[in-house]
Amino acid sequence: MIIHDISMSIHPDMPVYKNQKEKRPVLRFLQGFSTGESCASNLTLDTHTGTHVDAPLHMLPGGKTIDNLDLARVITRCKVLDFSFIQEKITRRELVVKNIEKGDFILLKTRNSYTEQFEYDFVYLDKTGAAYFKELAVTGVGIDALGIERNQPDHATHKTLFQAGIVILEGLRLKEIAEGSYFLFAAPLKITGAEGAPTRAVLLQ
Amino acid sequence: MIIHDISMSIHPDMPVYKNQKEKRPVLRFLQGFSTGESCASNLTLDTHTGTHVDAPLHMLPGGKTIDNLDLARVITRCKVLDFSFIQEKITRRELVVKNIEKGDFILLKTRNSYTEQFEYDFVYLDKTGAAYFKELAVTGVGIDALGIERNQPDHATHKTLFQAGIVILEGLRLKEIAEGSYFLFAAPLKITGAEGAPTRAVLLQ
Repeated sequence: MIIHDISMSIHPDMPVYKNQKEKRPVLRFLQGFSTGESCASNLTLDTHTGTHVDAPLHMLPGGKTIDNLDLARVITRCKVLDFSFIQEKITRRELVVKNIEKGDFILLKTRNSYTEQFEYDFVYLDKTGAAYFKELAVTGVGIDALGIERNQPDHATHKTLFQAGIVILEGLRLKEIAEGSYFLFAAPLKITGAEGAPTRAVLLQ
Repeated sequence: MIIHDISMSIHPDMPVYKNQKEKRPVLRFLQGFSTGESCASNLTLDTHTGTHVDAPLHMLPGGKTIDNLDLARVITRCKVLDFSFIQEKITRRELVVKNIEKGDFILLKTRNSYTEQFEYDFVYLDKTGAAYFKELAVTGVGIDALGIERNQPDHATHKTLFQAGIVILEGLRLKEIAEGSYFLFAAPLKITGAEGAPTRAVLLQ
């Protein structure tokens, strides 16, 4: 069994959405060897920084929270699709030529995986792509960007996916992963009432 | 495949070590539907609150940090051993009668799993038990307490395990889990330079 780590490292200089300062994680050492007999720290993390799962509440008022996620939805077979050649966005047109079936969890590999900084023009899934995933009844969609869309005013991609009960996984690192089938493990922290939560996502092969 | 969630829920009223206020997590909603078009929050979490993996730096000056953990150590076959009948501590004597082999990852189920609050007299692994695990060359030890020992002055249990390269997994919830063999998934968040990190731990059966 090969374990592929597809998660971002969490540190103050990591890429964060639109380089917003308040989205940067902070790690504080509250206790160190100089003051105590052990060393312990405390992390402040935006729930949408780094590799994370979105819950419907993120975009839908009254939507489900992350602690209500059925783990079978994120511990599952998955398919990585390579769209590294795309410059702007993934639409229905790029998806229809791929082998996607009902019940699949799809991970979108794009040129985003090849940069170590936040790119304002990151590749995203547009609303026609989201509608196609809804039509096909996939169970989840992951992407190697901090957003599955680029803050489109109506958030149509997020809303279409959430309304169809499709899991959204963001902040993946897929540079080393070839197109193909894997076993995904992306169970998020069980934060009561939260609209998203970090996960240490891996692929097993 | 059955998925058993063996993680603690993260919320302000969860049990924390010695009920220390600074170890309580805080979830702040920075953006809500009343102020924006989406809802987003920010979590402050002690790295040893809830279900987490300790890294050697927690107790050994200059020890390895959590981002250096080989994921194959926490994505692995494991054995749950039931010690629910023990009142005080798990020692070598209780372990020698169990079937433990080189390379095993052992999860210790105790009466701790049956309470929803922090118990000052929680059941722990004493130093003779840790020495026995070192002798057997197990790869990891997990327990259903927020500490694998009760802050013993010399931290002998932690130090013995860390010096032997044995992974320590704390804060498990094992009430529903019967003694037996499982597949463990307990990859922690990849926090650069940290001495521990939260994980969403599950058992697959």
